[in-house]
Amino acid sequence: VILRRTLVDRIQLRLDTFLNERASILASISPETEPLQTLSHNFLQTGKKIRAQFCLWGWLSIPDNNTVTNDQTEAIISAAAALEIFHAAALIHDDIIDNSDTRRGLPSAHRHFEKIHSDAEYNGNVTEFGISSAILLGDLMLGWSDELLDEGLKHLNDHDCAHHARQEFNLMRTQVTAGQYLDILEERAWVTQNEDQLLSRAERVVIFKSAKYSVEAPLLVGATMNGANEHQLATLRSFGLPVGVAFQLRDDLLGVFGDPQVTGKPSGDDLRQGKRTILVALARKRVSAEERQEIDAGLGNPSLSVDEISHLQNIIYTSGAVDVVEKRIENEVSHALDKLQKTKLTTHAVEQLRNMAVSVARRSA
Amino acid sequence: VILRRTLVDRIQLRLDTFLNERASILASISPETEPLQTLSHNFLQTGKKIRAQFCLWGWLSIPDNNTVTNDQTEAIISAAAALEIFHAAALIHDDIIDNSDTRRGLPSAHRHFEKIHSDAEYNGNVTEFGISSAILLGDLMLGWSDELLDEGLKHLNDHDCAHHARQEFNLMRTQVTAGQYLDILEERAWVTQNEDQLLSRAERVVIFKSAKYSVEAPLLVGATMNGANEHQLATLRSFGLPVGVAFQLRDDLLGVFGDPQVTGKPSGDDLRQGKRTILVALARKRVSAEERQEIDAGLGNPSLSVDEISHLQNIIYTSGAVDVVEKRIENEVSHALDKLQKTKLTTHAVEQLRNMAVSVARRSA
Repeated sequence: VILRRTLVDRIQLRLDTFLNERASILASISPETEPLQTLSHNFLQTGKKIRAQFCLWGWLSIPDNNTVTNDQTEAIISAAAALEIFHAAALIHDDIIDNSDTRRGLPSAHRHFEKIHSDAEYNGNVTEFGISSAILLGDLMLGWSDELLDEGLKHLNDHDCAHHARQEFNLMRTQVTAGQYLDILEERAWVTQNEDQLLSRAERVVIFKSAKYSVEAPLLVGATMNGANEHQLATLRSFGLPVGVAFQLRDDLLGVFGDPQVTGKPSGDDLRQGKRTILVALARKRVSAEERQEIDAGLGNPSLSVDEISHLQNIIYTSGAVDVVEKRIENEVSHALDKLQKTKLTTHAVEQLRNMAVSVARRSA
Repeated sequence: VILRRTLVDRIQLRLDTFLNERASILASISPETEPLQTLSHNFLQTGKKIRAQFCLWGWLSIPDNNTVTNDQTEAIISAAAALEIFHAAALIHDDIIDNSDTRRGLPSAHRHFEKIHSDAEYNGNVTEFGISSAILLGDLMLGWSDELLDEGLKHLNDHDCAHHARQEFNLMRTQVTAGQYLDILEERAWVTQNEDQLLSRAERVVIFKSAKYSVEAPLLVGATMNGANEHQLATLRSFGLPVGVAFQLRDDLLGVFGDPQVTGKPSGDDLRQGKRTILVALARKRVSAEERQEIDAGLGNPSLSVDEISHLQNIIYTSGAVDVVEKRIENEVSHALDKLQKTKLTTHAVEQLRNMAVSVARRSA
């Protein structure tokens, strides 16, 4: 536990140092880049840093032949921090896409830029300025995530490991972005699809947008950096994917039933956004034709009232879909934990990965 | 000339091969990623590839001690191609930001996605789907530009050169994105600034958004890959920056007076978008108070009529600002060409760089 805390603190320190360096570059261009400096910094002060932790424990799961050098620690800390910057960039763009007002209990980046516009009494369209600025902030941070990963990888003596880790990172980037596209496509395209395809289409989004991205890929980036062999990587994959699915299914439940005080997002946010999740697909199968119509009419309506949200929550809950999802989460986690039996991974990492699997599946935010 | 043509063809080939590989990854995720595959490919089929060419000639300007190996050619071709993918990504996001309907004579990416939505009779908001999808397409391509650069750099034996080139690329990325932010800020913030600051503020945007990005940085990426020394880099910088300024000033003129048939953009596009260019800043200084009011009232109004555009064009033209900008372009180019006198750069590259300087300053599209 001490180790974990220390490493997470070091990730935060690395993020702060790195972002301060980038802020200096921005400041040298113009003091008016200040919002880009502040927002990128503030965004990384909070968040669960789940991806960074899986990356660390991916590394730590591989038995060392030698003691860990300072260079190696520097490498993995930077890589874990890079995943968090990538994630922040993705969330900033995601909040534009989902039209979200809040993130981690604070205004989302585009809303923040809108406020800058209004406060300064600038000319022109406030909304467009918010979106445009947030697109650029996300772009900046996408580039930076890459730079920080490189700074980490150059500390590795083994160039094959560095190359392999880079490939995992690159694949992750393409997969999550394509997964995001499938997600927003499904919000619109489900209406043109066969009923019996909707569940499997929702499953596909979960795999690429979330399961691989949030758990499997970070584990693989960390493990490859430490020279994991194919067998060890296969174990981490077979553990990571079901944990990632459980992670997202919990997210789906929180997106409909989560406590705004805890999640930092409005209640029933996924309903207003029209997310076509596994939860929704399961509920639609289990309700009456009238209720199904109510779901379809309500989902994706950004101006759903509190009462309407509550009514939809009720339909979904009483359908039994929540129980099915809860059971599925349990199964995924148990399936994942099985894969950690009798592995060649380090004992302390296996213990930690078990805890993390349970904790991401049970989280309330 | 044969060399140039061959190398540019090789860049196109490299782009096609690379994007086909990426399309296969996308296809393996889902056939429904097809628009991402097609658009990224189509976008790179056209365009002037100015940045790729400056990158190539940056490399070729450094006298070789040895003959050029296949690995080295592979390296520079990939790096030049990577700059074009980065540029395509930036343009895709730029077109969202500027609300542009067309790019290179075709619908901009977000408009293309809107059409997919309408044609398929999807649910929900068409405009939001267009913007969201184009954000994701740009994000994908930002990541890919990075991967292609890495593929190039790994062909270099000299790791210091590779590292140096990477740093130039990274700095370019941060500078152009910050410059873009200053640009959209200025469209809104100019009204809150002192009159006498407007010209220097416009100059700053030109430097970071365009001059460094379009000419100086590509030259430096190419030259550092070929082991350029500080003296050679200083020469390329002192040549590249004024050429880049001339490039952008020409762009400003084309943005107001360009022929839509040649530019592939609507006439007076910059006026509708409210771009606060050097041209506009100069014109505002030279016109009557009434005309200045007309400029300020019209600029940034997306629904300017053809007559209103034509009226504003007339005010700007008769102000004499166009002549001033034309003279400035000439001076910048001549200043740049002076820097190529008596250099240690290769003779054939110097000749080519001269031609390119003149050609980017005089282009009509």
